[in-house]
Amino acid sequence: MSFRVWAPAPRDVAVRVRGEDHPLADAGWGVREGVVADAAAGDDYWFVLDGTPWPDPATRWQPEGMRGPSRVLDTDAFAWTDAGWSPPALGDMVIYELHVGTFSSEGTFDGVIGHLDQLAELGVNAIELLPVADGPGMRGWGYDGVYPGAAHRAYGGPAGLARLVDAAHRAGIAVLLDVVYNHVGASGNQAYQAFGPYFTDRYSTIWGEAINYDDRGADGVREWVLQNAQGWIRDFHLDGLRLDAIHAIHDTSAGHIVQELTQRVHAVSEHAVVIAGSGLNDPKVMQPVADNGLGCDGAWADDFHHALRVLLTGERQGYYADFGDVWQLAKAFRTPHVHDGTWSDVRGRGFGAPSDMLAPTAFVVFSQNHDQVGNRAIGDRLPEECRRLAAFAVLLSPFVPMLFQGEEYGEAGPFQFFTDHIDADIARATREGRRREFAGFAEFAAEDVPDPQDPQTFQRSKLTRREQPGMRDYYRGVLALRRSFGHTPVEDVAFDEAQRWLVVRRAGADLAMNFAREERTVPAGHGTVVLAPLSGEVVW
Amino acid sequence: MSFRVWAPAPRDVAVRVRGEDHPLADAGWGVREGVVADAAAGDDYWFVLDGTPWPDPATRWQPEGMRGPSRVLDTDAFAWTDAGWSPPALGDMVIYELHVGTFSSEGTFDGVIGHLDQLAELGVNAIELLPVADGPGMRGWGYDGVYPGAAHRAYGGPAGLARLVDAAHRAGIAVLLDVVYNHVGASGNQAYQAFGPYFTDRYSTIWGEAINYDDRGADGVREWVLQNAQGWIRDFHLDGLRLDAIHAIHDTSAGHIVQELTQRVHAVSEHAVVIAGSGLNDPKVMQPVADNGLGCDGAWADDFHHALRVLLTGERQGYYADFGDVWQLAKAFRTPHVHDGTWSDVRGRGFGAPSDMLAPTAFVVFSQNHDQVGNRAIGDRLPEECRRLAAFAVLLSPFVPMLFQGEEYGEAGPFQFFTDHIDADIARATREGRRREFAGFAEFAAEDVPDPQDPQTFQRSKLTRREQPGMRDYYRGVLALRRSFGHTPVEDVAFDEAQRWLVVRRAGADLAMNFAREERTVPAGHGTVVLAPLSGEVVW
Repeated sequence: MSFRVWAPAPRDVAVRVRGEDHPLADAGWGVREGVVADAAAGDDYWFVLDGTPWPDPATRWQPEGMRGPSRVLDTDAFAWTDAGWSPPALGDMVIYELHVGTFSSEGTFDGVIGHLDQLAELGVNAIELLPVADGPGMRGWGYDGVYPGAAHRAYGGPAGLARLVDAAHRAGIAVLLDVVYNHVGASGNQAYQAFGPYFTDRYSTIWGEAINYDDRGADGVREWVLQNAQGWIRDFHLDGLRLDAIHAIHDTSAGHIVQELTQRVHAVSEHAVVIAGSGLNDPKVMQPVADNGLGCDGAWADDFHHALRVLLTGERQGYYADFGDVWQLAKAFRTPHVHDGTWSDVRGRGFGAPSDMLAPTAFVVFSQNHDQVGNRAIGDRLPEECRRLAAFAVLLSPFVPMLFQGEEYGEAGPFQFFTDHIDADIARATREGRRREFAGFAEFAAEDVPDPQDPQTFQRSKLTRREQPGMRDYYRGVLALRRSFGHTPVEDVAFDEAQRWLVVRRAGADLAMNFAREERTVPAGHGTVVLAPLSGEVVW
Repeated sequence: MSFRVWAPAPRDVAVRVRGEDHPLADAGWGVREGVVADAAAGDDYWFVLDGTPWPDPATRWQPEGMRGPSRVLDTDAFAWTDAGWSPPALGDMVIYELHVGTFSSEGTFDGVIGHLDQLAELGVNAIELLPVADGPGMRGWGYDGVYPGAAHRAYGGPAGLARLVDAAHRAGIAVLLDVVYNHVGASGNQAYQAFGPYFTDRYSTIWGEAINYDDRGADGVREWVLQNAQGWIRDFHLDGLRLDAIHAIHDTSAGHIVQELTQRVHAVSEHAVVIAGSGLNDPKVMQPVADNGLGCDGAWADDFHHALRVLLTGERQGYYADFGDVWQLAKAFRTPHVHDGTWSDVRGRGFGAPSDMLAPTAFVVFSQNHDQVGNRAIGDRLPEECRRLAAFAVLLSPFVPMLFQGEEYGEAGPFQFFTDHIDADIARATREGRRREFAGFAEFAAEDVPDPQDPQTFQRSKLTRREQPGMRDYYRGVLALRRSFGHTPVEDVAFDEAQRWLVVRRAGADLAMNFAREERTVPAGHGTVVLAPLSGEVVW
């Protein structure tokens, strides 16, 4: 079989298979390639750069982890049964974000499979996996991943992922994958630098060295990312990607890497969706490439979350400080960018741009997600008394709703920040960074903040699956109601800032939301149905 | 009269007029304002921040230079006589780039006026002034300017500029101004920091601290730039701006500052043009704002220059290394971005994007300009034997041609890099930087590189106005021919790489360009006129 790698940095490159080094020839443009006659799927291999062995930057399989050998994966050998599958359009999706390690007791891809039918029955038709890239240790959220193409061995590796995707499609559920193209887990820097200029010092990110998208040698790096994205769709039958934090992807090229990526992904499958995690509040992210947009199908709408959350809980710390008024959620029901050129106290400047040209289905909304739960000091979920109203607002909005694992039945356990760094200095920095982050919060002593490296922090974050009575039925009911609304737009929004209520008229119904902590009377449209999540049930 | 300044940094702000400090009130958003009853146009003033006096960041007049007081300017007092003036569209312009200090013996705005009729007679209908912002000392190119709104006292200050613009309009000549919004001359950093967050450490530029367009407090900085741009058009009757190096303007805002700027400028006058100096090869720079472009009317096409120059001279140092083939100029005659997604050796990556959607008149082309002459070690112009062919290619192209002062008559003197830094460390760094820059060039010893701080370097750069016989007539003739071509597009381009000739068919004529150093025979279209700059004249 043939081996091929982009490695402009070293003088000599060989591939080591079955203990033997086979020199690779220079194919130009930094590409080295060669044929090893007796190599086969399942063989371990290393690329040997000037005598030192390294894993393949484009590895699909790291059976012994990020510092072990790569293994040849034959993606054609997956036993797919999803030939007739076609995913729902993004606008018809109900997404469920889950973390493979904590979603099931097994903590594996196979462990997810047994829960799929229950999700489908609830009304979920897409799951979105937190990043599964192989990285340091055996547990973590996935954002420190080092090899973006290698499904983590702790979850069951690439074959496990393929089994999950196949089973999901059988259950009528699409699978989206969170992918991180803004940095590489710091534990992997050296391994990449050995091959070529993967990083640039033109920019920096808070998580690690910036990936080189527009400096010398960027073409090979871009291709590595683009082929990674294509590979998930083509070889693992994934239905879409969620791009982590594209605001941290710095690229001054005339064709931004995200723009190239959406084109490549859509070329593999016109049904595949690309959803951006974007802190830019910039409609260009979702505008078509023909209009000089980045061409993402949708983006997470953090502002909608913040507007909703702060009304529900009254919290004002950190980036919640910009929110707390009913008009903001009223605006968010029209256009989820609350900051659309307007002043942001938190940023100390005007922020964002109007997004009126976008369909509501270009926005993914949620009341909980891994960030908004897990990046709290103790990873606690929305307080019980808020949950029904939160779900009501999210699920009956005209936007694409996303649930966070466990919210559908009122999970009581936390989702905390956990890591398994194998480099002592990174482990220490992560632990201390976490403590420092919450040092300013009066309600937490330093010792209250869970140690991310402690295996118990991971264990505590596993779903307990103890159900809050009535909650699953409530979600099922509201999701059924959502389906009956179809793609009807928001017709009108009324609110009373002082009385703290909001009424959204949609599909001939008045959706009444009361953020006061006492009873309110709201005006009902003539001949409309008033829906409200008043007494633990949807009233209609 | 009232004084108003954006100064969020200091606690107390006053304006000092006629020796007296008048406290300014907080008008919100960092703005301080107040009325000083007995102040009048012509009065000097300082803003006093927590006891320390500083010039006005938005100053229009620095009669004693960048570290002296600002002076109140009454722009309504200019005696304009250009009421009937309307500038040519960019597509009809023949631009002439000039440096006020070296263009005339006087070295002032008034010194330019006496030469305007001769330029108009030649066929020039727009002059573009190198930056005139007040900055360190009494001589310099202008890119170290500190106060972008204050026309330099060495040139005659704001009244002198107004007289020049008025005279130019009388002579049928538009006036464009080169403005620098990517950094502020380092000598001014402290003066700006005293007022507010004018700079950010998110990015850096090779010339100095990056201006804060997207970090905390950016709104006031953006407004300072936007009002500066508007002011030139509105109050000084300038017909357009050339934005220096927009690739060094870093801004992740949903609305890029250049996009906002083009909208503001066009709102002041629909006739005003904005031309970008852009090293991005990105058509978005010139695409309309409605298509998510930056909305510039045009941009300098450096690739056209490089393709032409390297064919003419065979030079391959620095960024010329990417050029030297006839096909590149052939491509540039179709679309001046030679790098339109293709590989650039110099950048070590693919670069640019296709710009087919743009009209030819969105590109400004030239065979010489302040950069391409002045940034050579000794500032020498194109060799004599190349000049006619160079002008032929530029002036008969379908793009907007720009001449550099003196080329129209074959000026023999150099245009060198000169400065007058008043801060000893900046002066030393500039002098040493210049020597270091050319240390790698075998043909120059360190002592051959002129000392930028030496007044003689400035003196040597003044136009001698000794004319190369026949050259002015040649330019006049080719420009007349250009006018007869109107806006006809390029119909066809033929070339022979080995024979080093290129024939561009336009307006029924075959424009034959021979880059071999010997005679060539080129195919002529049936029934077309063959034009070639063979024997020192345009042959037709």
